[in-house]
Amino acid sequence: MIIVGELINTSRKEVEERVKSQDVAFIQELAREQLAAGANYIDVNAGTLVGQEPEYLVWLTETVQSAVDVPLALDSPDPEALAAALKVHKGKAMINSITGEKDRFEKVLPLVLEYQASVVALCMDDSGMPDTFARRIDISQKVIHSLTAAGVPLEDIFLDPLVTPISTSSESGMAALDAIAEIMKQFSGVHTICGLSNVSFGLPKRKLLNRAFLMLCMDRGMDGVIVDPLDKDIMAYLKSAEALLGKDEYCMNYLTAARAGALDI
Amino acid sequence: MIIVGELINTSRKEVEERVKSQDVAFIQELAREQLAAGANYIDVNAGTLVGQEPEYLVWLTETVQSAVDVPLALDSPDPEALAAALKVHKGKAMINSITGEKDRFEKVLPLVLEYQASVVALCMDDSGMPDTFARRIDISQKVIHSLTAAGVPLEDIFLDPLVTPISTSSESGMAALDAIAEIMKQFSGVHTICGLSNVSFGLPKRKLLNRAFLMLCMDRGMDGVIVDPLDKDIMAYLKSAEALLGKDEYCMNYLTAARAGALDI
Repeated sequence: MIIVGELINTSRKEVEERVKSQDVAFIQELAREQLAAGANYIDVNAGTLVGQEPEYLVWLTETVQSAVDVPLALDSPDPEALAAALKVHKGKAMINSITGEKDRFEKVLPLVLEYQASVVALCMDDSGMPDTFARRIDISQKVIHSLTAAGVPLEDIFLDPLVTPISTSSESGMAALDAIAEIMKQFSGVHTICGLSNVSFGLPKRKLLNRAFLMLCMDRGMDGVIVDPLDKDIMAYLKSAEALLGKDEYCMNYLTAARAGALDI
Repeated sequence: MIIVGELINTSRKEVEERVKSQDVAFIQELAREQLAAGANYIDVNAGTLVGQEPEYLVWLTETVQSAVDVPLALDSPDPEALAAALKVHKGKAMINSITGEKDRFEKVLPLVLEYQASVVALCMDDSGMPDTFARRIDISQKVIHSLTAAGVPLEDIFLDPLVTPISTSSESGMAALDAIAEIMKQFSGVHTICGLSNVSFGLPKRKLLNRAFLMLCMDRGMDGVIVDPLDKDIMAYLKSAEALLGKDEYCMNYLTAARAGALDI
């Protein structure tokens, strides 16, 4: 499982304050903790700081990478912010994200190519967000084909099926799960990824639903997740599912986690 | 989800003592609690009381059904014990279980037919337990075909893929999961069912693995489970998965469970 640590995001009140005050120690510690908990990428998002996003995203990139040797998921819809952060980023970044929307696609694609970055591709286009399985597949195919035709290797693409809440439609969960399975089948080598919290929007006990949904997504072959790696519960379930799905030879990672106390939830 | 409550089983020390001392109140309370927690069937098993199993299974059947109006899963490999219990059972029993072993099949089948019972069909035959996905499908097909050819409706068959521990082979989980999906696809109307604990045999934190495995099995379409319904954690995950998989319209059961405090885990 490719784990993107989601905690350095200014939509979280405390993070926004620490970013504004340029609290290097706080941000670096948040990066270190996520890395230690198993994150493969650290997401950085300064989206709430309107008008100053490029500067802050550069500051976050430099601040995190001067503390930990880990690639970042540069999380912005703004090509200007992405370009500025990519310029200072060390190693192979993940761009989070591109979509099938014509304008956004044309502006973000050159950055993916120039920096040979990985890229999260959201399953949406100028017609909006898909509301059915069939539309999800249709849009996903177009976005993936457009990326590969431009020279982006399948292995660098993380397709996000855009999960919608089950509180608004009982079919939302299945639509995303079926899309994950179908995309993984149609495009050998591509990755799929999603955040978990949308699915439980509007319902009580959201973390319970989010954990259960991660199990279901992993069963469909999803191999990336944007998650809080400091949430011990969800990481314990993630390791359990890897062992159960035959992705943890001799259950070595599971046993190591058990010995370290990481499964004591 | 069709839930078979597994607690009235003499392999559990306390239950064995209470059965031997014919503690009616204890057994009836254990049945009532499981029913209240959502069990659709109450399993009764007196297998450790060798030589007296028929008498004790009859006693358990009468004791439970004089307290609660619920069908039982009569849990024995012994046709004599099953026949005795079926004679006193009220309503449509579940026979747990038949196999593809020639002798057992021939002795249990007449009971299934005579009492029009549901039946758990274990995926094994005279060659033993299957060790691969292909053998599981082969044996499952033969057992299901033999049952339906004899007149048992598909809707009365609960195929158990016989889960083996992931501690002995990393492929064990996938072999069972793939078998569940394939059987549900090939035989429309058939049920699949399993106990959860075998998968985690030999590993630490077994309940964590068992809960995660239930999510994966449900994702493959499994619609029955033999489980401890008093385990609040596993029942909360079960309700979550039903909502996520579109099997809980408007999330009504999930919301009801939340209001009742059943998701406070």
